[in-house]
Amino acid sequence: MQRTDVARGSKSRRAAAMDKAADPSSFQTQARRSFLRSGMALVGATVASASGIAAARAQRLEIPRSALEMGRIIELEAYGMPSKFEATVKRRRSDVLVNRQNWSDWSMTPLQDQLGIITPNGLFFERHHAGVPDIDPDKHTLVIHGMVKQPLKFSMSDLMRYPSVSTFYFLECSGNGLTDWTKAASTTVQQSHGLLSCAQWTGIPVSTLLDEAGMDPAAKWVLFEGADGSAHARSIPIQKVMADTLLVYGQNGERLRPEQGYPLRAFIPGWEGNVSVKWLRRIKVSDQPWNLRSETARYTDPMPEGKWRQFSFVMECKSVITRPSGGMKLSGPGIYPLEGFAWSGNGTIKAVDVTFDGGKNWREAALEEPFLDRCLTRFRYVWEWDGGPAKIASRAVDSTGYVQPTVAQIAKARALAGFVQHHNGIFPWSVSSNGEVKNAIV
Amino acid sequence: MQRTDVARGSKSRRAAAMDKAADPSSFQTQARRSFLRSGMALVGATVASASGIAAARAQRLEIPRSALEMGRIIELEAYGMPSKFEATVKRRRSDVLVNRQNWSDWSMTPLQDQLGIITPNGLFFERHHAGVPDIDPDKHTLVIHGMVKQPLKFSMSDLMRYPSVSTFYFLECSGNGLTDWTKAASTTVQQSHGLLSCAQWTGIPVSTLLDEAGMDPAAKWVLFEGADGSAHARSIPIQKVMADTLLVYGQNGERLRPEQGYPLRAFIPGWEGNVSVKWLRRIKVSDQPWNLRSETARYTDPMPEGKWRQFSFVMECKSVITRPSGGMKLSGPGIYPLEGFAWSGNGTIKAVDVTFDGGKNWREAALEEPFLDRCLTRFRYVWEWDGGPAKIASRAVDSTGYVQPTVAQIAKARALAGFVQHHNGIFPWSVSSNGEVKNAIV
Repeated sequence: MQRTDVARGSKSRRAAAMDKAADPSSFQTQARRSFLRSGMALVGATVASASGIAAARAQRLEIPRSALEMGRIIELEAYGMPSKFEATVKRRRSDVLVNRQNWSDWSMTPLQDQLGIITPNGLFFERHHAGVPDIDPDKHTLVIHGMVKQPLKFSMSDLMRYPSVSTFYFLECSGNGLTDWTKAASTTVQQSHGLLSCAQWTGIPVSTLLDEAGMDPAAKWVLFEGADGSAHARSIPIQKVMADTLLVYGQNGERLRPEQGYPLRAFIPGWEGNVSVKWLRRIKVSDQPWNLRSETARYTDPMPEGKWRQFSFVMECKSVITRPSGGMKLSGPGIYPLEGFAWSGNGTIKAVDVTFDGGKNWREAALEEPFLDRCLTRFRYVWEWDGGPAKIASRAVDSTGYVQPTVAQIAKARALAGFVQHHNGIFPWSVSSNGEVKNAIV
Repeated sequence: MQRTDVARGSKSRRAAAMDKAADPSSFQTQARRSFLRSGMALVGATVASASGIAAARAQRLEIPRSALEMGRIIELEAYGMPSKFEATVKRRRSDVLVNRQNWSDWSMTPLQDQLGIITPNGLFFERHHAGVPDIDPDKHTLVIHGMVKQPLKFSMSDLMRYPSVSTFYFLECSGNGLTDWTKAASTTVQQSHGLLSCAQWTGIPVSTLLDEAGMDPAAKWVLFEGADGSAHARSIPIQKVMADTLLVYGQNGERLRPEQGYPLRAFIPGWEGNVSVKWLRRIKVSDQPWNLRSETARYTDPMPEGKWRQFSFVMECKSVITRPSGGMKLSGPGIYPLEGFAWSGNGTIKAVDVTFDGGKNWREAALEEPFLDRCLTRFRYVWEWDGGPAKIASRAVDSTGYVQPTVAQIAKARALAGFVQHHNGIFPWSVSSNGEVKNAIV
């Protein structure tokens, strides 16, 4: 697909000035500060009258009550928690696909509230097939067997003696977005895209252990199996396992959470979440895949003429606007910082374009560093909303040149029927003239 | 200071192979995988006999109990928590400087347990002077006044309408290490270095708002004041405020925690923690500093001949080995992954050297990407411990060429008396022949 019609240089001076402020790459230069010193007074004045930012003069300095009394005595030897005023920021179940039980279920990340690229572990999306086991790490073992010279068995303390690596990667469920292919079902971006999160993962390359076990030259596939009640397992091609698959025990600086596979999971960068098998207890090497239920009945893609595609692992390039997004309301015409995430299972993000007219015209958004491989990248654009109806969406391009497709383009190549996975289509939000933002998939 | 005597190429083949495995920059290359395939079998065999890693063959595949039953039903609409098996990983008070009250106190990050460079918000060190206020963000305001054309007042929702930036920075208390200048007082790295953490911070440049208020050309200093019971405040030179100081409301993807200044704090990258004023309610512009108690009686450095140095803001280049560290015990001669953190308030980390003989010889450690400005950088070295007494330490070099000094070098330039701040000296751990690791400051 070709990337076309990106408009540049057509924004007003004040929006351009605020764009500049949003661009961290220019943040520390003297040139930019001089530019802002002349430019932002205008922005400030306009914003003050137009949208209520910084409108009130400070007439007298009120001293808040908190400054007149001693604060709370907090528990100092503890694990801290968010403010009580942030209690609504939490994982949520799907409103669209309602389960009648909790054994095989999932909860979704509040992307509308996420700041930066790190998803806090307490808000990291999760999916389980048979509840969440509470495994004692001192009793957990990992076995490597099958087509290897020497089967091996490891305790957690064995594994933690190996040199580790820590790397930032996104994780996305293959089913992220499956409720919203052809009609607007989800009301918020948490519901439509919240099976997506991002963390720094710590663990050891699987290749280190497979090299130690000594693989048969005929080996072609590797099985990862979990110690949960569903014995969730997947077959992974050996090239990917040897290239960059990790055995992970750490997430965002601490040990994995129970629902993320504590004490050990596979992590397969850029691929659909379910292959990064949690509560990992077994790695088996073979010359063929296992064709498990998760590889035949589940996690396959319907294609034209009644065929199904197996082993479609990669989460391709995708993006979504998180602010403003479904359920928010703009307070009136004016300047709004538009933000969102872009990511690709095939590399880094090269560019993100945004549209305000449903895809007729596209403008280039600013990308925020660092630009990491198979990691969330945040894009920003300072939008002047004129108060009229708008249809906003983002379109990402990754380092391979691949352009995020429209749903219509995906529908042409595949069959949209049943629980269709791998929705990486362009996702629009409508803004009505009263400021309400809604899911605009049609 | 000059950097000297780095030994290279003197490691055995198996330690070199494991070093290679620890180096993420070479992680995805075919060359490295081929090297490991021939090299790691040797490592594996040696490790198996020498240190117990991967020693046991898998004789039969035991099925763990967790795989034979359904897991726990977790609360899906919630904020998740660590495993019950990780309950000892928490912030701790100082064992060395024991407070008799909690109003002015602090708690320290368990650096010995931290994986990667992100400190989870629940474990992020904190320091407060009058307890922790629980501020309602809907009632919080920020005032900008003093030598400006137009005083301004902002609600939190006003501030969150501005374009934001998200950046990774370390935060370190100026008092980090002050108990361990001349004798070994702390038993663990949490006690000796745990007033150090790292996060991705989200907020808006202060310069944007000061430009909007319109500063008097004679302005030279800026006051930041908190809404806590101590009204903690600091005077900051205007060049630093305009260069990179942020008004921060987000930390590691979510809103600030109460003990980190919720709903708003200053963040002054690379400088001592106490200047990043929490619960921020007021910014005042002036042509001179305020010389507050925090700038005269506190947070100053004793110098030779009875003088005191004010406004010594920058946290200079420093590093520490976190693994192995005080309180740990090595299980016998063999290969150990040595790890630690390096950081500098003046830029990125260029190199870290490690010693095993108390500083006679130094070897270069591997640094893990990404290399971010004024952020923690993790270093790694695969150490073959021969079982004899050792004295291990790390020495960091930053992008300005500055080399982390010895305590003796600092003592020559300054006076070590009272609660001396800004300890960035090289910090040794002793390893005795029974494997015990202890603080070796003398």
